Amino acid sequence: MYSKLGLSLTTRAVGVLVEALGMWWNIPFAQFSNFFRILLAASDMGLLSSDPDAEFVDQIALFTALLSACIVIGHLLEKSRWINQSITALVIGLGTGCVILLTSGGKSSRILEFKQEFFFIYLLPPIIFNAGFQVKKKQFFRNFMTIVSYGAIGTLISFAVISYGATHLFPKLDIGYLEIKDYLALGAIFSATDSVCVLQSSVREGVVNDATSVVLFNAIMNFDLSDMNAGVAYNFACNFLSLFFFSTVLGVFVGLLCAFIIRTLYFGRHSTDREIALMILMAYLSYITAEVFKLSGILTVFFCGILMSHYAWHNVTVKSQVTTRHTFATMSFIAEVFIFLYVGMDSLDVEKWRFVDNTPGKSIGASATLLGLIMVGRACFVFPLSFLSNLTRREEGEKVGFKQQVIIWWAGLMRGAVSVALAYKKFTGSGQTVQPANALLITSTITIVLFSTVVFGLLTKPFLKKLLPHPSEPEETEPSSPRSLTVPLLGNGADPEAETGNRGTLPTTSSLKMLLNSPTNTVHHYWRRFDDSYMRPIFGGRGFVSYATGTRDMDVIH
Amino acid sequence: MYSKLGLSLTTRAVGVLVEALGMWWNIPFAQFSNFFRILLAASDMGLLSSDPDAEFVDQIALFTALLSACIVIGHLLEKSRWINQSITALVIGLGTGCVILLTSGGKSSRILEFKQEFFFIYLLPPIIFNAGFQVKKKQFFRNFMTIVSYGAIGTLISFAVISYGATHLFPKLDIGYLEIKDYLALGAIFSATDSVCVLQSSVREGVVNDATSVVLFNAIMNFDLSDMNAGVAYNFACNFLSLFFFSTVLGVFVGLLCAFIIRTLYFGRHSTDREIALMILMAYLSYITAEVFKLSGILTVFFCGILMSHYAWHNVTVKSQVTTRHTFATMSFIAEVFIFLYVGMDSLDVEKWRFVDNTPGKSIGASATLLGLIMVGRACFVFPLSFLSNLTRREEGEKVGFKQQVIIWWAGLMRGAVSVALAYKKFTGSGQTVQPANALLITSTITIVLFSTVVFGLLTKPFLKKLLPHPSEPEETEPSSPRSLTVPLLGNGADPEAETGNRGTLPTTSSLKMLLNSPTNTVHHYWRRFDDSYMRPIFGGRGFVSYATGTRDMDVIH
Repeated sequence: MYSKLGLSLTTRAVGVLVEALGMWWNIPFAQFSNFFRILLAASDMGLLSSDPDAEFVDQIALFTALLSACIVIGHLLEKSRWINQSITALVIGLGTGCVILLTSGGKSSRILEFKQEFFFIYLLPPIIFNAGFQVKKKQFFRNFMTIVSYGAIGTLISFAVISYGATHLFPKLDIGYLEIKDYLALGAIFSATDSVCVLQSSVREGVVNDATSVVLFNAIMNFDLSDMNAGVAYNFACNFLSLFFFSTVLGVFVGLLCAFIIRTLYFGRHSTDREIALMILMAYLSYITAEVFKLSGILTVFFCGILMSHYAWHNVTVKSQVTTRHTFATMSFIAEVFIFLYVGMDSLDVEKWRFVDNTPGKSIGASATLLGLIMVGRACFVFPLSFLSNLTRREEGEKVGFKQQVIIWWAGLMRGAVSVALAYKKFTGSGQTVQPANALLITSTITIVLFSTVVFGLLTKPFLKKLLPHPSEPEETEPSSPRSLTVPLLGNGADPEAETGNRGTLPTTSSLKMLLNSPTNTVHHYWRRFDDSYMRPIFGGRGFVSYATGTRDMDVIH
Repeated sequence: MYSKLGLSLTTRAVGVLVEALGMWWNIPFAQFSNFFRILLAASDMGLLSSDPDAEFVDQIALFTALLSACIVIGHLLEKSRWINQSITALVIGLGTGCVILLTSGGKSSRILEFKQEFFFIYLLPPIIFNAGFQVKKKQFFRNFMTIVSYGAIGTLISFAVISYGATHLFPKLDIGYLEIKDYLALGAIFSATDSVCVLQSSVREGVVNDATSVVLFNAIMNFDLSDMNAGVAYNFACNFLSLFFFSTVLGVFVGLLCAFIIRTLYFGRHSTDREIALMILMAYLSYITAEVFKLSGILTVFFCGILMSHYAWHNVTVKSQVTTRHTFATMSFIAEVFIFLYVGMDSLDVEKWRFVDNTPGKSIGASATLLGLIMVGRACFVFPLSFLSNLTRREEGEKVGFKQQVIIWWAGLMRGAVSVALAYKKFTGSGQTVQPANALLITSTITIVLFSTVVFGLLTKPFLKKLLPHPSEPEETEPSSPRSLTVPLLGNGADPEAETGNRGTLPTTSSLKMLLNSPTNTVHHYWRRFDDSYMRPIFGGRGFVSYATGTRDMDVIH
């Protein structure tokens, strides 16, 4: 109470002073004082601004300022042993939320309302697209089966474990009645590992995992699962698989179309800006078209990114290559920081906590139960799948060691914005948490996200240092992207020439022997022959650029 | 009617077919057919989608597709003698509007509603910032006085002429009662030349002009001008000037702050993305902060752009330099195309035309009157100011010739999105055109924007060819920006080394003689001494970069 009073008095004093100055200078300094009030005592925020547009502008201004602050502070803490950019943003968001909460006398903690549409329409696409665009393609395709099995099958296992566990454990907590659909939704929500965190440690299953969770979730929301039988289950499975297939096809199609247009129309001749603009717009188009068709935009835009970096990127001028690579990384970076800031600020929203005020035990119980289920669920697929994966690999160096399995397990424990967004979609009706059980599940989600990101996140760097005494980190001098951890986990460090382009130097053993030795490599080999013979002549790509400013010059500056 | 019926039937047939296929494939093809319906027969748009989110996604998808189409078609028409990118976008917007209008049976012509907040918050900032960022600084500052006089004083003259003319001519047209405030607002609205078009012909007064118009307009909206007297006029003038001053100061401050942060914290060492993100965010922060303080965001972000390109840009890595230059240009380019597409689509909105249905003569009369006033108003300041400007220039080569004066006059006749946005702000109450006079003014604004952009725009290229037989266009091979016309009008072609950096090679005549010969040059000379001695050591800049990847390497790729 005292701090609130003090802040309020300070604000009012500053306001009066500024207004006096303003009258003297004859300029509308009332606006200045207004801004001070917002900044210092957001209690007046809703009361002062009768104009909703002006309030919106204030909100954007404050948010932009906070984003800038996050980036600067994140940079200063870069060398820290514990902190990463996500934690910085989350903590700044929490801090701002605290200030607003204190000064508003407990009325509000946030500037903008967390809308799941906003998240899915604007923030997620650049992150996922960039993940596809910057993916180490050889590494990714060499480990394609592993990644898909971890991402898709793993998510399904995790989903089953969490749903089953919740169905049996939650009734004991007495948190209120939940339908079978709610339990299944919980499974889908908490199967979505935080792709942002996961991407930071290069476990590329993250995107596939998110896609699987979101597709699962949407399928659960759309189907009437109250009378479960074989027919419904069959339909459900078909639906799920066709969504996967068509999403991928759409992404590949848009990526190829973009490469074809740029190659055919020879854009760079006229304008670097135009080809960059086209790449950005078509990438977004792939995502939003998938959403229109109720496909998985995440999968679509991810494959669109891979195709674009494989073909279209080689058809543009050198300037466009540098620009697109960094622009996409920057957009993704800003979106990531934005999300954590947002979640941090939103997590203190009093509205949601009001319902659990008198039952703190139940809330903690539910959160702990879910967190336990997440850890068990992930263990249930990481270790068995790694075991199976190791069976297919003959050479010792290619096998995934136990320590690495533990790291893969650990790196996927964080839950992030996807979980929050899905939880909001399921358990809030137009932003209001009506039922006590729903409110409790929302707060549990927030608790899990905060706890896993901050606590697990803080422990990750030391944990990795302990398990991997000689981490194969890239040169410290100038990484092109602000990822704090880029240990190529799934790549096993076995492919150091991943992107340096020593194509066609595979040992020329007979194809049957190759197939027996390493099926994935053989598929890769045939794919490359197909790619060189048919795809690249049409869609362009490394070595198939027809004009002077090819990719060779690129090496100088990239 | 028949075409509508035909389209509707086609749509329904496609829809049924696709749904049948979908049942067979067991995927939710209903969504596909839904999309077809939207695309082919928007009549069903509002009726089918009961979910507002889904509808929003459809709208974004269609808009993104149209934007991509604009870019591709604009590229194909690049070589055309008549067309430019603005006209392409406007015509595509009109065409789409027509299709939607026909298929909706005259109910609606647009996908998204034109909101002036949207325009001022998202679309204008990147355009104006880029204008500042890419400005030829030497040329700009050499001609600073000319630009400011054309931009600020010229706009005031134009404002006076249009307001005065409208006050006297409109009552004769009998379009309904208008207050004195409405006439003044009309003057401000139509003093805003289309900065997008104007920028394309390098008349850099455009930004100052827009800023003046918007500041004037806001001042008119805020003041009670019904009882005009000396006191009110004095306050009004002070307000206007202080807004100008503080907006500039804010822009300079943010630009310097950004340079200082990047220089001090040495961002490039850790992450290219982080410094790019910081530049983008701080640029936007300058704009939105100005808006919060009710200053002129346009002026602020313009000066922020100039300062950033003068200091901050030299403090970042080479990769960031290439990326920022092209990213800002691309963002500006997309925003421009977006605006013209938007205006084209919106201009067919039936709601607005309904009121003028039975009085087409009045509407044409009002539009023609305003267009005439715009042409007279511009002539009233271009020729006198050019005459005055020529008086201060001793050498014949520096004078602005008559042909160039005509071109300057012509290039500023287009009216664009700023006019439309201001007209909406003034003459619509929450999107509805209530009074007949207001509706008529809205339609007149749209008519003028369409007519001036399309007709004047089409004539510009041939017109310039006729007046400037040897245009000093840049090399055709690969301009960094998709401007169709980059004739340096105000620069007089007298400064070919504008940006090639031959600093310090000014002839060493005595400063008094220099001052007499050319006052602007002297100011520039002292500014450079000050800049080299005090500013660059603190804020960085060309030649003051302290680490290895300096600007020298830059010349290779830029």
